[in-house]
Amino acid sequence: MIYSVEKSIEYASANRSRFLDQLCDLISIPSISTDPNRKLNMQSAADWLVDYLEKIGMQNVQTFPPETHPIIYADYLSAGLDAPTMLIYGHYDVQPAEPVDKWATSPFTPTIIGENLYARGATDMKGQVMASIFAIEALLSQGPLPINIKFMLEGEEEIGSPNLALFIEEHKQLLACDFCLNPDTGMLGPDTPTITYGLRGLAYFELRIYGPKNDLHSGVFGGAINNPAQVLAEVIAGMHTPDGTITLPGFYDSVRPLENEEREELARIGVTEDLLKERTGVPALWGEPAYSAYERISVRPTLEIHGLYSGFIGEGGKTIIPSYAMAKISMRLVPDQRPDQVQKQLLAYLEQHAPPTICWELFASSQNAPSISDRNSPWVQAMSDALFKVWGSRPLFKREGGSVPVVTQLQDILGIESVNTGFSLPDDNMHGPNEKLHIPTWVKGIEALIRLVESLTAV
Amino acid sequence: MIYSVEKSIEYASANRSRFLDQLCDLISIPSISTDPNRKLNMQSAADWLVDYLEKIGMQNVQTFPPETHPIIYADYLSAGLDAPTMLIYGHYDVQPAEPVDKWATSPFTPTIIGENLYARGATDMKGQVMASIFAIEALLSQGPLPINIKFMLEGEEEIGSPNLALFIEEHKQLLACDFCLNPDTGMLGPDTPTITYGLRGLAYFELRIYGPKNDLHSGVFGGAINNPAQVLAEVIAGMHTPDGTITLPGFYDSVRPLENEEREELARIGVTEDLLKERTGVPALWGEPAYSAYERISVRPTLEIHGLYSGFIGEGGKTIIPSYAMAKISMRLVPDQRPDQVQKQLLAYLEQHAPPTICWELFASSQNAPSISDRNSPWVQAMSDALFKVWGSRPLFKREGGSVPVVTQLQDILGIESVNTGFSLPDDNMHGPNEKLHIPTWVKGIEALIRLVESLTAV
Repeated sequence: MIYSVEKSIEYASANRSRFLDQLCDLISIPSISTDPNRKLNMQSAADWLVDYLEKIGMQNVQTFPPETHPIIYADYLSAGLDAPTMLIYGHYDVQPAEPVDKWATSPFTPTIIGENLYARGATDMKGQVMASIFAIEALLSQGPLPINIKFMLEGEEEIGSPNLALFIEEHKQLLACDFCLNPDTGMLGPDTPTITYGLRGLAYFELRIYGPKNDLHSGVFGGAINNPAQVLAEVIAGMHTPDGTITLPGFYDSVRPLENEEREELARIGVTEDLLKERTGVPALWGEPAYSAYERISVRPTLEIHGLYSGFIGEGGKTIIPSYAMAKISMRLVPDQRPDQVQKQLLAYLEQHAPPTICWELFASSQNAPSISDRNSPWVQAMSDALFKVWGSRPLFKREGGSVPVVTQLQDILGIESVNTGFSLPDDNMHGPNEKLHIPTWVKGIEALIRLVESLTAV
Repeated sequence: MIYSVEKSIEYASANRSRFLDQLCDLISIPSISTDPNRKLNMQSAADWLVDYLEKIGMQNVQTFPPETHPIIYADYLSAGLDAPTMLIYGHYDVQPAEPVDKWATSPFTPTIIGENLYARGATDMKGQVMASIFAIEALLSQGPLPINIKFMLEGEEEIGSPNLALFIEEHKQLLACDFCLNPDTGMLGPDTPTITYGLRGLAYFELRIYGPKNDLHSGVFGGAINNPAQVLAEVIAGMHTPDGTITLPGFYDSVRPLENEEREELARIGVTEDLLKERTGVPALWGEPAYSAYERISVRPTLEIHGLYSGFIGEGGKTIIPSYAMAKISMRLVPDQRPDQVQKQLLAYLEQHAPPTICWELFASSQNAPSISDRNSPWVQAMSDALFKVWGSRPLFKREGGSVPVVTQLQDILGIESVNTGFSLPDDNMHGPNEKLHIPTWVKGIEALIRLVESLTAV
């Protein structure tokens, strides 16, 4: 038997329904990395992937135990030293399903409705991980491959990949490759294959404000005590000007100015204000008036509040001055901002604005730098060719607002660039309730990844 | 046997340890009126009180079913039409115990440590209700009384007594009396018996802010969507000026100016800034600079945030733009503010300040007006005499920051005034964790209530 792309595509087609069943198996495991009670589920998901990689003929399949959740490695190196080596990155952990009551289906019971598969992790990114694995399975079923393949699948992406950089640092030889395929960034629409060449970074914090030593009766003490919930509101409110500019001292100093050419390209992508309003359901958009809405969500830095908590939030009323208030806050960063810089700016802001009537603490968690990669590398071109063969149109090149820590880490440590693509769609409700995967797009994605190997042989 | 105050006091003394046991029985029932899951516990607490009132010889003991939790009525009318009639008010519901992890003991397992009894409801106000009942029990054990007694014990005080006004309105005849004894206001210190002649009112609201239809990925949409948590923070922050003045339009228009004489009296009470700092543990006090801290907590209106919720508040991080944010807000009102007026002011503020990028809703719950009563009435004087006999010093007269809806309702509907006193202390942690009752003060309180009956015969 010899290597054949066409037969591999036939194999994928013949096995489509089994592929979908097996994806559902993996998705059913609630591998929520941020939840300490899900540690066993995380291990089950890793075991499932190890089994599957062995079954399709990947070699050297093993897990590495970082502090919390294992990293899975597997390789196929039979193409030899002269052939290109592609590292495929993925993550098998998912976001929490909360708020569960907003889901129309049970989040960990994969449910097909029409053309979509609904479940947490369906699109972000178990669907993408399995598309890659099924593509390699289809190729291997037809004979030896002309390129080398390595998989690196982590379980801590949704908590900011805190142990990945160290792992890469300590396994440079094992991970050595020509480029990384990262299918975690998605498409602009079902007919618009997309390659993402820029990603925002992230700096995530928890701010805690402490007032009186206990919750106090607001009738007895109200009027003389600075309410921590009010202080938190004031501190947060001050982080933006009314027009949406972030007020942290020096926040924009390192932001690389946008070139006119890049702004024109971004405008061509066609993410309009109406589209954003329709997708999100908000009555009106918001943000820096000097930038288009699409620029604001892709190439401008932001500061968001992800959670607020203070005092009594149950049904009914409780008349307390809470002793404590908390906010989860993150900034999306763009070149050349750095997370450690932004942390200093936030601390400076708090030192300046937190009143002497309360105490506060700031805890930093996920931190990763923004990235921009080379649009003209042979690996990007190979991906572009493969997408063209399946969709009949060249992919759009875009910068994205999300953060993919591994892209920066691979660039910094291994000196390699990532080809960021994927088959998720903007209405897939990533991170929110009713996350879904568009099955026809996913099926095309598997074919495109099979064709990628063909394109790479021409490099 | 004839009525004898001294023998009644001996009886109370001989039964002290049983009284304490029985108080603990009642306190063990978690009668949390705001919690829909505690409806059976509410009924158990009411049943317990009905049994006890019957056991000590009260007559006509019955419960009335308002919408949520029963009102208990009992009377002793043998003193005849010419004798004074005292209505004793109390409530058997308690605040929720949250945050439970801040309690040193289990909130519904009454625990004596040193001179204090720790439990939710120990001081607010099951301890006060039982002090009144034990005083009447001691008196009745010695023979017929020279005055008539009525009890009205409600189960909805901690949810703002929503059904009490209607009940009073519909039972004017049954409740007819000369004055109401209300032991729900407490003392300034263990050696300072206190009568409260003014109370702040309350207007309680829940503000909900709605943004995108689902939680959104902050990397994908951040920068173009007005974050509901941020909007909530901005709206709340704007409700006070930096010096603590409330900005709702017209908020201070109906506030009766303080007279110099009253300010001097308030200053004499001796609640200093240092005392407030020590009791609350805050690094610095806060509030309107033109008023003393004690004025701010007693005779000035306030606006407090009791709870904040938005997005993801669990362990770890989640990078969402939340679809929803909520705050629980109340205002303490002083004469001549009215809750309905203040609600209009809050609505006007929100209409003016909520941005067009979100939707909002305001829900009103507890609403009651502030009150001031006559310090020279014979009933107040009788209470003052009784307190003097036990403590050896005249009570302090004060206005209090808390709200007791029934006081206004009895004034408005029955035209009678309340004598507001009680034996709770400022460090009793009412509404907070580690609520306690100071047992020696409570024992003195029982004696004072026995002596009140003696003083009333002189009226």
